[in-house]
Amino acid sequence: MATAVEEISANRHYNGYNRRYKHRSTVLGCDMTFTVYFPPAAETGKVPVLYYLSGLTCNDENFIQKSGAQRAAATRGIALVAPDTSPRGLGVEGEADSWDFGVGAGFYLNSTQEKWRAWRMYDYVVEELPSLLRSTAPFATSLDVDQASVFGHSMGGHGALVVGLRNPQTYRSISAFAPVCHPINCPWGVKAFTGYLGEDRELWKQYDACELLRSFSGPVRPPILVDTGSADKFLQVQLQPQALEAAIQETGYSPATMRTQEGYDHSYFFISTFVDDHINFHADVLLPGK
Amino acid sequence: MATAVEEISANRHYNGYNRRYKHRSTVLGCDMTFTVYFPPAAETGKVPVLYYLSGLTCNDENFIQKSGAQRAAATRGIALVAPDTSPRGLGVEGEADSWDFGVGAGFYLNSTQEKWRAWRMYDYVVEELPSLLRSTAPFATSLDVDQASVFGHSMGGHGALVVGLRNPQTYRSISAFAPVCHPINCPWGVKAFTGYLGEDRELWKQYDACELLRSFSGPVRPPILVDTGSADKFLQVQLQPQALEAAIQETGYSPATMRTQEGYDHSYFFISTFVDDHINFHADVLLPGK
Repeated sequence: MATAVEEISANRHYNGYNRRYKHRSTVLGCDMTFTVYFPPAAETGKVPVLYYLSGLTCNDENFIQKSGAQRAAATRGIALVAPDTSPRGLGVEGEADSWDFGVGAGFYLNSTQEKWRAWRMYDYVVEELPSLLRSTAPFATSLDVDQASVFGHSMGGHGALVVGLRNPQTYRSISAFAPVCHPINCPWGVKAFTGYLGEDRELWKQYDACELLRSFSGPVRPPILVDTGSADKFLQVQLQPQALEAAIQETGYSPATMRTQEGYDHSYFFISTFVDDHINFHADVLLPGK
Repeated sequence: MATAVEEISANRHYNGYNRRYKHRSTVLGCDMTFTVYFPPAAETGKVPVLYYLSGLTCNDENFIQKSGAQRAAATRGIALVAPDTSPRGLGVEGEADSWDFGVGAGFYLNSTQEKWRAWRMYDYVVEELPSLLRSTAPFATSLDVDQASVFGHSMGGHGALVVGLRNPQTYRSISAFAPVCHPINCPWGVKAFTGYLGEDRELWKQYDACELLRSFSGPVRPPILVDTGSADKFLQVQLQPQALEAAIQETGYSPATMRTQEGYDHSYFFISTFVDDHINFHADVLLPGK
C-alpha cells in the first residue's frame, strides 16, 4: 500500500532539487521527515540511490544544508536520501532528556524494550523508507531503489556500517565519516544499547560493525571506505577506528579503506572536505564505467 | 592601536582553516564576531581578501557553514572574511522586535539617528575590520588586506554593491547574490533607511546601488557580477534587479554582468550552486594570471 507523502519544501540546487517530505511512518508510529536530492539526471531516467544516515542530534536537514554533497551527486547522477535520526513527537517520558539517547538518537536499531518500542530506525531505514520510495510518486519513476548504497556520519556512520554489513546484497557500497565503530564498547553505544536493547550483551552484537565483520558470511562484500579526522574530540573514546581496523585485518575483509585525515575534527567542515571522495566511491560502484 | 582579538573556534576545512574570532568593536561599542577562512596558501605567504556580507537575520556563521565557498577559495588561494550583520547585545529598546530592522539587520550604513547611533556597519566593514586585519596577528602576516574584493547576499549584496561602488580603489571587484538593488524604493530599504537615516531621502542615496551608479565618478571601475534566481520570492518587490540593470544600461558602467538563474530561490542552495563562479570572478581580478 502506498503511503501518502507530502512535499514540504523544494529548493533548486546544482540544476537538480532538494525536496523535503513528510509522511506517516507505520513502523515508527509517527510523522517523519526526509529529504531527497534529485540530480538533473533524475528528470530523464532512473538514478541510483545513496542513503545518508546522520549523527546524534541531527535531523534530515543538517547534511542537506552543510555537506555540499549535492555538487558531486549532480555530476555523477546519483540521488541522495537523508532520513531523520529517530521517531519524534511521541511524547515518551524522558525522550528529550539526553542529546545521546531518545529523540535524535535512534542508533539505527530496533528496540526490544517496551518503553522505546517505537525506536525501530533499523526497520525504518532498511525496510519502510526503501519500500515507500519504490512504490510512491515521484520516487518510483525517478529513483532506481534497487541500485543503492549507504553512508553516514558518527552515529550514522555506525548505522551505515551496520545496515550495509547486514544487507550486503541491498547496499552495494558502504562509507562513513567518523563512525562509531564499536558501540558495544564505547559510552554512547553502551548507554544506547542498554536503554534500547536491555542488558543481554549478546543481542547488542547485531548492531556492532566490528562484531558484524567477524560474523560476516557474504554472499558479496560491499566495498568499504572510512574517513576519520585526527583532531576529532570523540576519536579514542567514542569512535575507536582502531577497533574497526583490527576487525578488518583479522577477518581479511576487502576491499576496505580506512583513512586518517590530519587535523580534521567531527564537524561538517570535515565531511564537506571529503564528501566528493565518498560520492565518487559510491558512484564508481553504482554506475560502473560512467 | 591593535585591538585584542580572541579566537573562539577553529575547524580544518579543505586543507585550510575556518577560524572564528571575537573582538571589541570601537565603532559599534559592542563585542563582535567574525570568521576568516584561511586557505592553505595563507600558511606560506599573504593571500588576498574577499569580504562576504550576509543577509537579514544572519551572523558570520551562515555563509561559513552553508555556502561551500571555501573549496574554491582554497584552490585559488583567497581568504574569506565574514563579518556579522549588526551590533549585538546593546539592549536598544525594540532592537530585536523585527527580523528586518535592528539586530541582524544593519544594512551596512552609518545611522544618523540618536537611538540607533551604534548601527554603523558601513564604518565597521570599510574601516574598522580592515584596519584590525592589517594590524593584528595572525591576520597581518597572512592576509594581503590591500588586495581586497567584496561580495554578499540579499541585504549583504546591497552592502557589497554600496561599499564597492563608494570605494572603487579599495575593492577591486564586486559581486552579489540576490542583492537588494534599489533600497530607497523597496519595503525593506524604506523601513531601514527611515529608521536609521530619518526622513530626508536625499541622504538615503549614498546607500543605494542604483543611485551610486548614477553618481559614480571612478577613478576606476571594479567589475561587477550579480546573480539572481528566477524563483526568488523577494525578486520583484524587494530585490528589483531590473532597477540595477537599468542603471547599468543608463550609465554604461562596465564591466558588469547580471544573470538570472532559472528556478533558483533566495536560499544558500542558490548561493552554493554559483559560489564557484563568484570566487573565480574575484580571483581572476585579485590574482591575475594565477
